Amino acid sequence: MSKFFSEKYSNLTPYTPGEQPQDKKYIKLNTNESPFPPSPIAQRMAREEAGTLQLYSDPEVKLLVRDFAAYYGISEDEVVFSNGSDDVLNFACMAFCDEEHPLVFPVVTYGFYCVFAELNHVPYEEILMNDDFTINVSDYIGIGKNIFIANPNAQTGITLPLSDIEKIVSSNPDNIVMVDEAYVDFGGESAIGLIKKYNNFIVVGTFSKSRSLAGARIGFAIADRELIRDMNTIRYSTNPYNINRMTMQAARGALADDEYFKENCEKIKAIRAYTVCELKKLGFTVTDSKANFILAKSDRVGGKDLYLTLKERGILVRHFETDRLRDYNRITIGSMEQMETLIKVTKEILGERS
Amino acid sequence: MSKFFSEKYSNLTPYTPGEQPQDKKYIKLNTNESPFPPSPIAQRMAREEAGTLQLYSDPEVKLLVRDFAAYYGISEDEVVFSNGSDDVLNFACMAFCDEEHPLVFPVVTYGFYCVFAELNHVPYEEILMNDDFTINVSDYIGIGKNIFIANPNAQTGITLPLSDIEKIVSSNPDNIVMVDEAYVDFGGESAIGLIKKYNNFIVVGTFSKSRSLAGARIGFAIADRELIRDMNTIRYSTNPYNINRMTMQAARGALADDEYFKENCEKIKAIRAYTVCELKKLGFTVTDSKANFILAKSDRVGGKDLYLTLKERGILVRHFETDRLRDYNRITIGSMEQMETLIKVTKEILGERS
Repeated sequence: MSKFFSEKYSNLTPYTPGEQPQDKKYIKLNTNESPFPPSPIAQRMAREEAGTLQLYSDPEVKLLVRDFAAYYGISEDEVVFSNGSDDVLNFACMAFCDEEHPLVFPVVTYGFYCVFAELNHVPYEEILMNDDFTINVSDYIGIGKNIFIANPNAQTGITLPLSDIEKIVSSNPDNIVMVDEAYVDFGGESAIGLIKKYNNFIVVGTFSKSRSLAGARIGFAIADRELIRDMNTIRYSTNPYNINRMTMQAARGALADDEYFKENCEKIKAIRAYTVCELKKLGFTVTDSKANFILAKSDRVGGKDLYLTLKERGILVRHFETDRLRDYNRITIGSMEQMETLIKVTKEILGERS
Repeated sequence: MSKFFSEKYSNLTPYTPGEQPQDKKYIKLNTNESPFPPSPIAQRMAREEAGTLQLYSDPEVKLLVRDFAAYYGISEDEVVFSNGSDDVLNFACMAFCDEEHPLVFPVVTYGFYCVFAELNHVPYEEILMNDDFTINVSDYIGIGKNIFIANPNAQTGITLPLSDIEKIVSSNPDNIVMVDEAYVDFGGESAIGLIKKYNNFIVVGTFSKSRSLAGARIGFAIADRELIRDMNTIRYSTNPYNINRMTMQAARGALADDEYFKENCEKIKAIRAYTVCELKKLGFTVTDSKANFILAKSDRVGGKDLYLTLKERGILVRHFETDRLRDYNRITIGSMEQMETLIKVTKEILGERS
């Protein structure tokens, strides 16, 4: 830290992205990327934009807003786009959370929520889950604080039913409830329909996972138009041109190719079912994930030991050395071939340990 | 504003980007875009990335950092990239400015500086320029506050010599001086060399103007490695994957094609000289701009009148309805053909007014 760094941020611990080692080629199952390339339409539309990059992108992102609103059955003023969904999570934290409006979220969840709270000097409270990583909905009923919930939950893939989400939203009418649906397309139930009914509710989503555009950076929030206007006040005060031209077109192409999107989601779900089944046969405890990853632990090999040994053998999974997660590893659902290799190598490791 | 919007931001006035009307096709001279497409190498490298967008971009932006450091003769830990230079201006404001470290900047200048100050609740002071838009360097010597200066200055294109920049930096050793060189490649003198000598100095730049990548969104800050580390603390706490895959490659391609870059800068300078000459022949007062725009006023037609009449006739320029600027218009240097049209139409308008 330089002597010039503001004391405001002197205790800030930044987010740690999943590792991207360059020493060799890995089977990369650590950052929940899709094993499938973007839709050919998305690729073509992104490429076509390369020749006009001397022109600014549209701050209103009009063409994407139009397509997106039609796709999700919302109004054009009920969505805001951001440079990946982290960006819009921060907008929501900035716009609606402060000393008088603290934030709560479950532990475990997406590791960025507490970073955004600390960055914005928002008091926050982490609500413990049950030992099986399920959430007690009653913990969130009428608590009078802003709430961030990932559904399916980050790290575990476990979902809350829509009826529980609605109970949380309706019982906290003076606070914002934000549901992060980054992983919803792999088997969760989207709460987008609730934004017409509740003016305190935000759904955040991303094109990174199910639409294979992690490297293009496009996220969104869907909410009542007044909340969207507030988040746009933040966006226009930080980075009005936040969506570049190529990414806007890639996102439009991804939306246009619905068949490809749905096929890929179905494939991931099938490969997930296979992976869960095989890991259970090997004695693993595996969460009931509706996301494109699973959380798994074994009595025969420690979480960190398995992570390190897999890495040695060319397979990257995500290990979190925290109280609740250190026995586990989070494993992205890759291609069938990748997961067969994972199972094969895991079997070998378990054999060596017994 | 919704009832949920934090009082922290209730008085925030966002930045207003240049208009992008869609009613017809304009000669667009209002947002300082390049009239030239990106380098063919930049286009090709961006396009080649479209097929791998399912993978996250590199948070360390390693390949671009390497190329960029070699190009500018700096170390790899002396640069940070952002999603357009607005983003990194905000990082600098967040990291180094606070209640105890207020900010000063000239008026007139880039309209985003005061937005960033207000967003971050940083006290700020605007220092008046002379009537001819020149800066009194003595106003900034040893003032013990953080300083943002655009050089060439935004809106006017007028430059400060490197020796003046150095006096300002060296006389405020306990404060940050940030020089915004968005327009430096069109005839300014870069201060990048000073970052090795002063630990309180930041140069901000962009690929938007001289490298024809406004629509790709890539900006940067060059500074002492400790300042870069601080800005990275902010970046990793907001949006670690802020540079998308296509943009990183486009930027590398733009750097690789130095001949194309230099040719385009020379062309802009020549077209600027032609435009200034013609406008002066028509009686306009024109600032001595080293940027890819000029600021011009006429005694024969008001600033707003000229702006509106040009717009009616298909030419967009930028008009600011502020005390200092309302008599003027800021006109981007476009292609020779576009500027010939501008001169022709302006002659017609002046003829009608006399």
